[in-house]
Amino acid sequence: MFSEESQDELFSATVTAPVNIAVIKYVFWITPTYRAIYKANRYWGKRDVALNLPANSSFSVSLSQSDLCTRTTASCSRSYSHDELILDDEPCEFLGQADDDADDDSLPPLSSYAVRIETWNNFPTASGLASSASGFAALVRAVANLYGLLPTQQAAAAAPLSRIARLGSGSGMPQPLRRLCTWDGAWARSRTAPTARRKYQLAPASHWPEMRMLVLVSRESKKDVSSTRGMQVTVQTSDMFAYRAANLVPERMRRMEEAVAARDFATFGRLAMKDSNSFHALCLDSEPPIFYMDGSSRAAVTVVGRINEAAGEIIAAYTFDAGPNAVIFYLHRNRHRVAGVFRSLLSEKQGWASERGATIQPSAIDLDHGTVSRLQSGVKRVILTAVGEGPVDIGAAGRREPCGL
Amino acid sequence: MFSEESQDELFSATVTAPVNIAVIKYVFWITPTYRAIYKANRYWGKRDVALNLPANSSFSVSLSQSDLCTRTTASCSRSYSHDELILDDEPCEFLGQADDDADDDSLPPLSSYAVRIETWNNFPTASGLASSASGFAALVRAVANLYGLLPTQQAAAAAPLSRIARLGSGSGMPQPLRRLCTWDGAWARSRTAPTARRKYQLAPASHWPEMRMLVLVSRESKKDVSSTRGMQVTVQTSDMFAYRAANLVPERMRRMEEAVAARDFATFGRLAMKDSNSFHALCLDSEPPIFYMDGSSRAAVTVVGRINEAAGEIIAAYTFDAGPNAVIFYLHRNRHRVAGVFRSLLSEKQGWASERGATIQPSAIDLDHGTVSRLQSGVKRVILTAVGEGPVDIGAAGRREPCGL
Repeated sequence: MFSEESQDELFSATVTAPVNIAVIKYVFWITPTYRAIYKANRYWGKRDVALNLPANSSFSVSLSQSDLCTRTTASCSRSYSHDELILDDEPCEFLGQADDDADDDSLPPLSSYAVRIETWNNFPTASGLASSASGFAALVRAVANLYGLLPTQQAAAAAPLSRIARLGSGSGMPQPLRRLCTWDGAWARSRTAPTARRKYQLAPASHWPEMRMLVLVSRESKKDVSSTRGMQVTVQTSDMFAYRAANLVPERMRRMEEAVAARDFATFGRLAMKDSNSFHALCLDSEPPIFYMDGSSRAAVTVVGRINEAAGEIIAAYTFDAGPNAVIFYLHRNRHRVAGVFRSLLSEKQGWASERGATIQPSAIDLDHGTVSRLQSGVKRVILTAVGEGPVDIGAAGRREPCGL
Repeated sequence: MFSEESQDELFSATVTAPVNIAVIKYVFWITPTYRAIYKANRYWGKRDVALNLPANSSFSVSLSQSDLCTRTTASCSRSYSHDELILDDEPCEFLGQADDDADDDSLPPLSSYAVRIETWNNFPTASGLASSASGFAALVRAVANLYGLLPTQQAAAAAPLSRIARLGSGSGMPQPLRRLCTWDGAWARSRTAPTARRKYQLAPASHWPEMRMLVLVSRESKKDVSSTRGMQVTVQTSDMFAYRAANLVPERMRRMEEAVAARDFATFGRLAMKDSNSFHALCLDSEPPIFYMDGSSRAAVTVVGRINEAAGEIIAAYTFDAGPNAVIFYLHRNRHRVAGVFRSLLSEKQGWASERGATIQPSAIDLDHGTVSRLQSGVKRVILTAVGEGPVDIGAAGRREPCGL
C-alpha cells in the first residue's frame, strides 16, 4: 500500500523513438479471447502461456530521428484516476479499458496507481506515418524506465506498470505489442517460437551507410481504417492470412537477413516490394476489404517499376505500411536515378530543401499522364531520410536531443 | 486437299454472346510450357494430356443480351492468308501465332485453310466490360458452327478449325479457353478434374427472376495490364495463387451453388464480394503488382458496405473483373435501396433513362465526401441489366436479334 505522502507524488520518464518501417510486415493478432486473457493478466505476476499467440516474424528499419521521431512521456501518480494513453490526441483503446473492468464487480480495482502516457511527433501527426508504431515503441521504453524509477514497495503496488514493463523485456508480453519489443536498433528482426520470444539487432545503423529512404506523404491524411482495427479484421477474416504467416514469411525473413548482411540491394528491394504487396493483398482479402493504398500509392509503384526497368536492375524499392504513404528505398549512389525522378515529378512539394535534398539532381523518365497526375495530386510533401537508431532515453528532465521536441 | 474451285469459297457463321461476369473468379494458366504444348497440338487429332493443366472452377452469370452483347462472325476461305482474330479492333495474340510457326521450318504449314474472326460489341468497346471474355465465348461457338458447315473433306483439311471447334465440346481444350466452354446459360459452373472436364448449367436465367445488376462503367477505359497478361503474371509470381485455387475455391463453389439453388441473396452476395476481393488480392500479390481496381472501385465498395449496414443485411454485392468497373448485384425488390442510392449519387451520368431505370427511385445515404467525389469523378456511365441467356446462333445471314447488332 502507498503511504499518505505519496498521494500526489508524480514519477515521469521520457523517451524518443524513431518511426520504423517494416519491410517484412507484421500482422498481429487480437482475437476475441485476447481481451479476456489481457484482463486476467492484469493481476500481478500472472503470465498466461496463452499470451503466446502465434504471429509471424517481422523485419523493420528505423528512420533517422533527426528527420522523424516520436517523444513519449510516461508518468504515474496516485492522483491519476485511470490509465490513459494518448496518441495523436486520441485515447488509445489498448489501455483504455477502465470501463471493461468497472463492469465486473468480482475483480478488484486494477489501477490504484494509474499511468498516463503522452505522445508527440516531430512530423505531421496526421500523416499516417507509422505514428502508432513509433508511439508504442516509445511507450514501452518510457514505461519500462518509469517502472525502474519507482521505490520497490510502490512498484509492487503498481500492477499495471509491472505488466507493461515486462513488455520491454521481450518475454511474456501480449502479442499485440510484440512488434515493439523487437525494435532494438536500426535493423531488427524477431522470431516467434511457442516457448521463446527473441529479439535481434541484425545490424547497427552503420552497417549499410548508403541506404536512403524517400517518404511520399499522401494528401489524404485520415485513414479509413485504423491499423489496429484493420489487423483485427484481417486476422479474423482473411482466408490467406495464416498461409502467409506460416508458409511465406519464414523464407522471406531468411532471405532478407542474408540480403542485409550481404548489402545486396536488389534482393532486399525485391523482397521488400513482394512482402508489402503480400501484406496489402491480405488487407484486400479481408471482410470488409481494407484499402490502405490509394491512387498516389499505385502511381509510386508504377514509377518505381519504371525506374528499375530503365536501370535494368532493382535500384529502387517501395514499401507501404497501413496507409497510402510510399517509403522508397535506394542507395546514396543512385539518388539521382531514384529520388531525382521523384524530384522532377514533385518539384513543387515541400521537403526537397533539406541538407539531404541539396545533393539530389532532378532526373526525367518517360511516364504516362495518369501516373504523373495521380502522383502529383496525391502527394502532399516528401521527406528524405536515412537509417537511424532505436529509442533514446532522455530522462524526466526533457532533454531536447535528438529529435528537437 | 482442296479442289481448285473452293479457292475463293467463303464459309461463315455468326453468334451473339452475353457479357458474363464471374462471381467465383477464374484464373487461368499460361505457363511457359503452354506455348510449346499449344504448338504441338496444332497437329490433327493430337490431344496431349499435358493440356489438362490445373485451374480452379468458376461460377459465372450472364448479363442480358438486350443490354450488353457481343456479335462474332467466324469465316474461312482458302483465299485468307493467315488466321486472324480481331477483338475490339486489336489482333488477338492467341491465334496470331503465324510468326512463331514461320520461325520453325521443321513444322509443316498449319493453315492451308485460314480462319478470320471478327467481333463487335453493342456497348462501348473501351469500357473494359469483359469484352475479351464475351468475345471468346462467341468465337468458340461461331467457329464450332462454322466447322459444322464445311463439307467433310474440307473440314478434314482445316486443322486449325478442328482444333478450335473441340474447344466448344468441353474436352481436350487448352486451359486458357476453358472458362469459355463452361459458359452454357445463365448460371453456369465448371469443375476441373485431371481426367474430366465438365460443364453445368446450374440454373436457367428464369431461376431467380428478381436478380438485377448495376454496372458502373469507369471513366478510365484503358487497362494498364490486359487480363491475359495479368493472369500469366499472377499464376507465375503470386505465392498465394495455388493456395486459393486448391484450398479456398472448392468450398466457395459448393456454398455458391447452394446459395443460388436456395435463392439466398445474403450468402450469394457475401461469397461474391469475398471471392472478388480474393481475386484482386492475388493480382496485388503478383510481381509486379496488378491494380485493376481504382479510386472509383474503392468508392463503390464503400457505398455497397454502407447500403448493407443501413439495411442490416446484405442486399447489395459487388464484383470486379479484370478492370475497375463495379458490377453490383441486388434483387428487384431492393432496387430503390441499392440502385437508388447510386442514382442519387450519379444522377448526371448516362444510363438511368432506360426502361429498367424508370422504376428506380433515388435514395439518399450518408457518405463521406471523399467516397462521393471518387465515385462521381471515376464513373462515366451506368448500365442497368439482369440475368440473361448464353450464346445465340444467328446464322450466316446476320439476323439482327437479340442484341441489335
